[in-house]
Amino acid sequence: MTPAIITLTTDFGTGSPYVAELKGAILSIAPQSIIVDITHAIPPRDVFEGALVLGQVAAGFPAASIHVAVVDPGVGSDRRILLATVHGSHHIAPDNGLLTLLLDDQSAQELRIIDKPSFWRQAVSPTFHGRDIMAPVAAHLARGAAPEALASLLHQAPVLLALPKAQVGSRMIAGEVMMVDSFGNLLTNIHVSLLEGEAVTPFRIVVSGRELPLVGTYADGSPGDVVSLIGSRGWLEIAVVEGHAARTLHAERGWPVRVAW
Amino acid sequence: MTPAIITLTTDFGTGSPYVAELKGAILSIAPQSIIVDITHAIPPRDVFEGALVLGQVAAGFPAASIHVAVVDPGVGSDRRILLATVHGSHHIAPDNGLLTLLLDDQSAQELRIIDKPSFWRQAVSPTFHGRDIMAPVAAHLARGAAPEALASLLHQAPVLLALPKAQVGSRMIAGEVMMVDSFGNLLTNIHVSLLEGEAVTPFRIVVSGRELPLVGTYADGSPGDVVSLIGSRGWLEIAVVEGHAARTLHAERGWPVRVAW
Amino acid sequence: MTPAIITLTTDFGTGSPYVAELKGAILSIAPQSIIVDITHAIPPRDVFEGALVLGQVAAGFPAASIHVAVVDPGVGSDRRILLATVHGSHHIAPDNGLLTLLLDDQSAQELRIIDKPSFWRQAVSPTFHGRDIMAPVAAHLARGAAPEALASLLHQAPVLLALPKAQVGSRMIAGEVMMVDSFGNLLTNIHVSLLEGEAVTPFRIVVSGRELPLVGTYADGSPGDVVSLIGSRGWLEIAVVEGHAARTLHAERGWPVRVAW
Repeated sequence: MTPAIITLTTDFGTGSPYVAELKGAILSIAPQSIIVDITHAIPPRDVFEGALVLGQVAAGFPAASIHVAVVDPGVGSDRRILLATVHGSHHIAPDNGLLTLLLDDQSAQELRIIDKPSFWRQAVSPTFHGRDIMAPVAAHLARGAAPEALASLLHQAPVLLALPKAQVGSRMIAGEVMMVDSFGNLLTNIHVSLLEGEAVTPFRIVVSGRELPLVGTYADGSPGDVVSLIGSRGWLEIAVVEGHAARTLHAERGWPVRVAW
Repeated sequence: MTPAIITLTTDFGTGSPYVAELKGAILSIAPQSIIVDITHAIPPRDVFEGALVLGQVAAGFPAASIHVAVVDPGVGSDRRILLATVHGSHHIAPDNGLLTLLLDDQSAQELRIIDKPSFWRQAVSPTFHGRDIMAPVAAHLARGAAPEALASLLHQAPVLLALPKAQVGSRMIAGEVMMVDSFGNLLTNIHVSLLEGEAVTPFRIVVSGRELPLVGTYADGSPGDVVSLIGSRGWLEIAVVEGHAARTLHAERGWPVRVAW
Repeated sequence: MTPAIITLTTDFGTGSPYVAELKGAILSIAPQSIIVDITHAIPPRDVFEGALVLGQVAAGFPAASIHVAVVDPGVGSDRRILLATVHGSHHIAPDNGLLTLLLDDQSAQELRIIDKPSFWRQAVSPTFHGRDIMAPVAAHLARGAAPEALASLLHQAPVLLALPKAQVGSRMIAGEVMMVDSFGNLLTNIHVSLLEGEAVTPFRIVVSGRELPLVGTYADGSPGDVVSLIGSRGWLEIAVVEGHAARTLHAERGWPVRVAW
């Protein structure tokens, strides 16, 4: 059997020993699994950014991967823990909206609630369900346990975040910045598909009253130019050539971005 | 044979190429080993914090794991390098106190000094014994070499840190903050076992003249509340609900924490 | 077949989800590969530091390793992507100088240009060739594809950085700081081999008008002493005992260092 892939996405902080505790818990049950860090740099308790990162990255992993996400400010409360199987991949996360972008295709998903303590760490700490419940359940999945052995069907709706959606108006799309990446590029919620209609060309991209050229890639322009482009996942992005757009423009999540034609 | 697990704990800094040099040295000898980063974010030369992290995390890995710890301000001096086998797991570290929390059960441990240069890198740099001695020895263990082939029995006592212990007095326990975690939570040296005696209930937890409620988990309270709780390893912890206790309270290692009844 | 080792060196930032996208792309094609992070903390677009780190670390991995380096400010432009096979190891990187230190032995290397789109992601983003071209090509190599199936011979010279070389004069060597490591140590471009001639002993090491002792290792001296020593790769290094030389001396890349005798 090919070893299972288990990915980890947390707000524990890069280099946090809590991440290693997750890995120890997984390897103690499923020593053959391939553990991949997606990121541990989600800002503390920032479920919104965790959801965006998972939505961006998880689909790029092989089907049958097991994705564990622990951004869990409600740990130890009565919030549920989900086991969602979507297009053949498994997602384990608190039911707090972390899986919002992954639960958009109801025909291809099965939602369960993790509720079988015999698969958990014997003593469960109320402050670390990642280590004591989610990691062991992921490891049992990796060893071949069936979702139905680990979790019961969920009959209610899962918690979903109300993500800001770009508004398409007459001759205008109003969107906003969703995330700042590590280069300072501003990732918006305006998808390229909205820009591809014939009626839309040519269009102007405006941020902060300033019209930006739409270029093909980061190298198109002179150092310091503020440009827009279609990022690698298909979303409109604002960048500064050889620079850091968020710092240059004093921009952050929620910053308005408009396309007009 | 199941591939061996080798963990790494260093003060090299997250993203330091020195970490990759350790991994290259290991994989050149034992390409099948499963290498797991515990952390590389121990503050430079901070043997105390390295010892705490190892004590917290190592026991969560499978028996027979090989733990390599390199917080080694005395590299190249005459300090010894230990190979300690404790409850079936192996620890490789400079003899400077890094293993203090792991060497508490003398009946279950065997202490050796690494002194067989034929297993080391051919040219040993006096500034990087992690790469040139500890990583190769770990890799040879991973390939099945016996501890006695790699290291001689140690006949002296190893170096142990004098860790501050909570003082139990009449109707009072005086402890202190041992470490600040990545969420800003303050981990103390007061273990839950000290609080479980009948005589002790009810008790008051006092920091900086302020009495704190003892809650079950981080979500119990209103944002901004300063609370105490029992952390996931059984130690009393101070937290700010949805906040960063160390910054809010201007607290750091050594800060006094008292329990009275 | 032993699983192939694929290393990653990028400027994406530690914890960046873009790193996870590389890993997803690799594992989707070659799920058995062993992926090792060299570093993701190269400063954004800093090809110079990327080249130094690769030169320092890559040789420590087993032959036949596949090294992927993505510091790629020209992504999406007409810059080439190289597949260089050197002493049996493979290097995949944009042709912008990243491989400068690895391409010094023309007799042992074969240079190719990656130009076979059938091995790439089906839709290639002009902003993320790391994920869409380099990672898939690395994964196909890992699965056993031959370099000649993935890339055509390069008939021009690759781009090489003009790295500052130490100048050997009459009774003097003039060098400079090449990189600051995570401990604040200053790594220079003066190699120990230049200091080993008989004529050179005894010599004086001078930085900023100040003569430094040459010691054996970091522990030789009193806390706060500024010392020089030969680092673990054979280069002259400036350090502060139990301190951070770059901060103490306000030193950075390009800072002059002299040896006189």
